[in-house]
Amino acid sequence: MRIGELSRATGIPVPTIKYYLREGLLPAGELSSPNQAAYGEAHVRRLRLVRALVDLAQVPVAQVKEIVASLDADDVPLHDQIGRAHRALIPARKQTASAEAREVATAEVRELLQRRGWQVEADGPALATLIETVATFHTLGQQNLVGFLDAYAAAVEQFTELEVEAVTAHPTRDQVAESVVIGTILGETVISSLRLLAQESISARRWS
Amino acid sequence: MRIGELSRATGIPVPTIKYYLREGLLPAGELSSPNQAAYGEAHVRRLRLVRALVDLAQVPVAQVKEIVASLDADDVPLHDQIGRAHRALIPARKQTASAEAREVATAEVRELLQRRGWQVEADGPALATLIETVATFHTLGQQNLVGFLDAYAAAVEQFTELEVEAVTAHPTRDQVAESVVIGTILGETVISSLRLLAQESISARRWS
Repeated sequence: MRIGELSRATGIPVPTIKYYLREGLLPAGELSSPNQAAYGEAHVRRLRLVRALVDLAQVPVAQVKEIVASLDADDVPLHDQIGRAHRALIPARKQTASAEAREVATAEVRELLQRRGWQVEADGPALATLIETVATFHTLGQQNLVGFLDAYAAAVEQFTELEVEAVTAHPTRDQVAESVVIGTILGETVISSLRLLAQESISARRWS
Repeated sequence: MRIGELSRATGIPVPTIKYYLREGLLPAGELSSPNQAAYGEAHVRRLRLVRALVDLAQVPVAQVKEIVASLDADDVPLHDQIGRAHRALIPARKQTASAEAREVATAEVRELLQRRGWQVEADGPALATLIETVATFHTLGQQNLVGFLDAYAAAVEQFTELEVEAVTAHPTRDQVAESVVIGTILGETVISSLRLLAQESISARRWS
């Protein structure tokens, strides 16, 4: 199909599609003549995915670029591809806590991982983010929030096994990788919205 | 204290402090002479909070401005102030799903809220975000993710009561409002990091 049909099929304006093409978020179509490119079903899927990441989940364009690159890196073992996708899904964050707070937080997070029996890479970005955030609780005088780590970890454990199973149930490798991205990013949006709604429901009962 | 001392007390460079002052993220100091302002402990606290929101949680500056405005709006009942803070904590998102998908998602989310017995405002931003995200699951052909709503809601319910209790345990009204902001934003970072670590731990066992 031509770019106009791609736009009608997805409801995404042509200028937006051209912007995604320029930014490398969407692979170029096949040239059918020097001035015309043809797009297929794969473009429809990718276009919808990019739109959801950029406009709904508000992932920065540079990060979306890394995410789609990880989806196309299917010449490595699946576990490595998923690892690359996972890394692309976690934004790099500046360190804002003091060195002392980070040392305390590192010990607290290590103990948490031991209590839960979680085996994770020592230098992964999710671990670094967790440690930095716990360190910041200390810097901000919110030590009591450290006490929530076990409650959060126990809650997360309840659905993670199901999530990993659902991802691996997809029939093709491309679908597995795509569902990791969608499940991680949009799943996060779902969980944070539900958390705010549950808080709203409880605090309305208490404070009104 | 002067701006140099404020910088030493927090480890935040003077140019960054001046940028926050210009952007209205930090209230001006008290003028002790035409060219010199004095800052107090409240500035130290606010400065650390703004830093964590901007650099760690990567909240856009415009949104941080609304968040700190909600912290300073203490001339309304506490429940209203918390409501304003909550709204400021949720970024406005573009609608990306089709109208049909949104209709299906609205019904699914309504049923979920009924099953859980959650009472929430019909036009709140967290509800809108949840509906839009569920609608996007449909648009992206990931209907199976809708099946996770109950698991996520049940997990969230496990800690929300504790969270609301911890917030209300703070002795002063300012601390209550501040802990809502920190607990919501940084708590989200903690939960999403833990989710990725739990997924990593489980999938490493399965796929390696």
